[in-house]
Amino acid sequence: MTPPQRNPEDRPVATLLAPDIVALLEESPADIAVETEEIHPADLADVAELLERDQLAKFLTALGPARAADVLEYLDEELRTEFLEAITPRQAAALVSEMTPDDRADTLEEISEEHAEEILSEIPSEARRETERLLAYEPDTAGGLMTTEFVSVSADMTVEAALDNVRQVARSGKKEAMHAIYTTDREGRVVGVMSLRELLAAPTGGKIADIAWTEVQSVRPSADREEVARLIANYDLVAVPVVSESGHPMGVITVDDVIDAIQEEQTEDVQKLGGMEALDEPYSTISFWRMIKKRAGWLSALFLGEMLTATALATYQKYIDERTVLSLFLPLIISSGGNSGSQGTSLLIRALALREVSLPDWWRVASKELATGFTLGLILAVIGFSRIELWQALSVHHWTVFGVEIGHNYDLSLSPTGEQIVHLGQHLPLAITVALSLLGVVMFGTLVGSMLPFIFRGLGFDPASASAPFIATFVDVTGLIIYFNVALHILLR
Amino acid sequence: MTPPQRNPEDRPVATLLAPDIVALLEESPADIAVETEEIHPADLADVAELLERDQLAKFLTALGPARAADVLEYLDEELRTEFLEAITPRQAAALVSEMTPDDRADTLEEISEEHAEEILSEIPSEARRETERLLAYEPDTAGGLMTTEFVSVSADMTVEAALDNVRQVARSGKKEAMHAIYTTDREGRVVGVMSLRELLAAPTGGKIADIAWTEVQSVRPSADREEVARLIANYDLVAVPVVSESGHPMGVITVDDVIDAIQEEQTEDVQKLGGMEALDEPYSTISFWRMIKKRAGWLSALFLGEMLTATALATYQKYIDERTVLSLFLPLIISSGGNSGSQGTSLLIRALALREVSLPDWWRVASKELATGFTLGLILAVIGFSRIELWQALSVHHWTVFGVEIGHNYDLSLSPTGEQIVHLGQHLPLAITVALSLLGVVMFGTLVGSMLPFIFRGLGFDPASASAPFIATFVDVTGLIIYFNVALHILLR
Repeated sequence: MTPPQRNPEDRPVATLLAPDIVALLEESPADIAVETEEIHPADLADVAELLERDQLAKFLTALGPARAADVLEYLDEELRTEFLEAITPRQAAALVSEMTPDDRADTLEEISEEHAEEILSEIPSEARRETERLLAYEPDTAGGLMTTEFVSVSADMTVEAALDNVRQVARSGKKEAMHAIYTTDREGRVVGVMSLRELLAAPTGGKIADIAWTEVQSVRPSADREEVARLIANYDLVAVPVVSESGHPMGVITVDDVIDAIQEEQTEDVQKLGGMEALDEPYSTISFWRMIKKRAGWLSALFLGEMLTATALATYQKYIDERTVLSLFLPLIISSGGNSGSQGTSLLIRALALREVSLPDWWRVASKELATGFTLGLILAVIGFSRIELWQALSVHHWTVFGVEIGHNYDLSLSPTGEQIVHLGQHLPLAITVALSLLGVVMFGTLVGSMLPFIFRGLGFDPASASAPFIATFVDVTGLIIYFNVALHILLR
Repeated sequence: MTPPQRNPEDRPVATLLAPDIVALLEESPADIAVETEEIHPADLADVAELLERDQLAKFLTALGPARAADVLEYLDEELRTEFLEAITPRQAAALVSEMTPDDRADTLEEISEEHAEEILSEIPSEARRETERLLAYEPDTAGGLMTTEFVSVSADMTVEAALDNVRQVARSGKKEAMHAIYTTDREGRVVGVMSLRELLAAPTGGKIADIAWTEVQSVRPSADREEVARLIANYDLVAVPVVSESGHPMGVITVDDVIDAIQEEQTEDVQKLGGMEALDEPYSTISFWRMIKKRAGWLSALFLGEMLTATALATYQKYIDERTVLSLFLPLIISSGGNSGSQGTSLLIRALALREVSLPDWWRVASKELATGFTLGLILAVIGFSRIELWQALSVHHWTVFGVEIGHNYDLSLSPTGEQIVHLGQHLPLAITVALSLLGVVMFGTLVGSMLPFIFRGLGFDPASASAPFIATFVDVTGLIIYFNVALHILLR
């Protein structure tokens, strides 16, 4: 079977391969391993996801444990867990034993503890101890990302000896990470690093210590995955060693795991920014109630926060009674605060994540955002003011869009007396009230929006939790207090 | 100078190194190249950013062109452009000639066209033509990301010949990408790929065609950087070849450039989600007016959209005149629509980006989100209903928080007659109105929020442009129409 042309738009690789593989499974399962040997395990995993449950077991068995383990690594998390829990612990152990130590630990982490322990007990003792050690780290730390099989050579070796060493490891068929080769001193501490390319380029007879770079970017096992990602991105690395306090190598994090971590982090950030808990599993496979749980929490919290608007408005109800026209501009004014706050928040969340600014810069950012908020507020104030004045001037024309009358002359009625006062000049105080409120609300929204990520970071939370809906809720209450206080001094005095 | 211990929290590498380098620049600039040879160019770039302009020129000159080119690659874009425009075209050409072709093209792209052409004219003709070819590609396509120097060997070579070949290239000191080695057929088309490790592990005497993988993941030069990123992430690659329509290799995109692209994309997405244009430059260095321009556009557009709420409310003003209590719950109800819409949008933006769902799935997503919206709406309706009823029941207690009276008894006044009707049972229709409106608004918001990313994608826009503020504005108008129509049938009939 030759690998078909890839077309990423609709992943035809899997859909093209699936019928052939199903046919082979029926007719000659023994040929599957040979027929698919040139196909990338990621594509085979896509095929596996399209198969029936019993076909899947047959398919993975036909591939043999080493190849099946490769496919399992790329398989959808939930399906992998389901499959490994359905087969016997001994069968599962045979499969996960073929995985790299980091993938093995990741796989067992997802399985129910009881099953994972049964599977672990069937794994050879050395690999078992190693896996248990990796399982002890939090999955989103350097320790949770690292693999423990990597290549290091002694710094006082010759180039030829080191190359022989590396070649032996490569030929052993084991899955050591070989993205970079680390050099160690006599106490086994990491003292240098070189690429396979640099080792190949080295003059014959040279010493490793003369070739390796002595600046080694490394992390502690407790480092956050964001720090690992920043290091890899900053120094254009393909791997980062994880070293202990004493400088001894514990493992290596490879760039592919970091890319996965960056993408997961990005998904979490976008979901948090949308005002919800991060799903932690694909949208297409998450169960209905788990999704409700992730969304209802924040939505209810925001709702409870937003209830303060009703409470605050109740205090101002007598002014609304007096001039109902005030309520017409309420959504316009408070939403402008939310929108400008959302801009400030998203800017500062990224600036903090990329280390363009850090906590002590808050004062510099605050003054910049205050000036920005003033300018943006002025722009909206001019638009708002012109709109009210223009509308009044043009209000001889009335027309209707979607059942809503456009060009409506605001009813500046004074209730409860019911006396209608609609004369020219009456709208000027209203226009001034709206314009000044907009200026105040946008300045306030911008400032709060840009400062909240700092406050969250300072309190040890993820700045991305300062979502647009969170800011909007926060600014809505203040926005209407600003609005009614401006109205009190201009329109209602 | 030994590289100091890195501490990513406050980047002390640069701040620790800077004083030593400034001292060296004063006393013996000739020693700088040797003293800093073990320090990563990324760290030297951080130091360079801390220097005065004239010190920077002196520093880069002291490093020599090859090393200075490395440092320039990591330097802040704006500073690099400023520096290269300030020196003579000949000096600049000497520096950019030392860069890899892709970095050279990226660097020249940022410089004013006039300066770039002057610099290009000083570059040797072969490199110039290559650079001009790369400059023709859009920066966010595969062609704009690729480097043209990579290693390929003929498929019918022996392992030893190929290894000699690779070793020669590595020793040449050129900057060929060696993340993967591609094999070509007699017509020069890409037919296989292997890692340096696989080449090293190959049995002596074997043929390259027997070792290389025939499934080669590749992209066309016009492919979007998002597609490149997805490929790298999906197949755990460290490089992707860019091939022409006829299958001939044109260049290679390495994983470090892809990580940079992913991070840029992420920054753009978060900024768009916040309701603004992507900044395209760091927050800390962007000029005040350029930032205003990026923010004012969307903010004004959202403001104009939100103006429809004032227009719609004007139509309902007579009902507000009748029951001002209606206006108290206005912000609460419309913001719930915006919040639930924002959740739906952020979920689907990521699901689309990760290809968990695609355009034809819109119908499946719509029904899932309708059910979700109903459930979430029900939860908020219950909270809203209980709140109004509880507040009325408990309203014997009055207390004040931040000047806002809590436990206020809603004034269910019937204006314009001024007759006050505040008796038990009167608040029930209000509670029912609020609850039913919440159910409707949340369902509508959830549905619209989840569908907008599909609509944006379908129209060829970036789904991330469907920002939280955009949804909120969209849903606010509809939300209040729903609210007043429910009120019309329950509270005001």
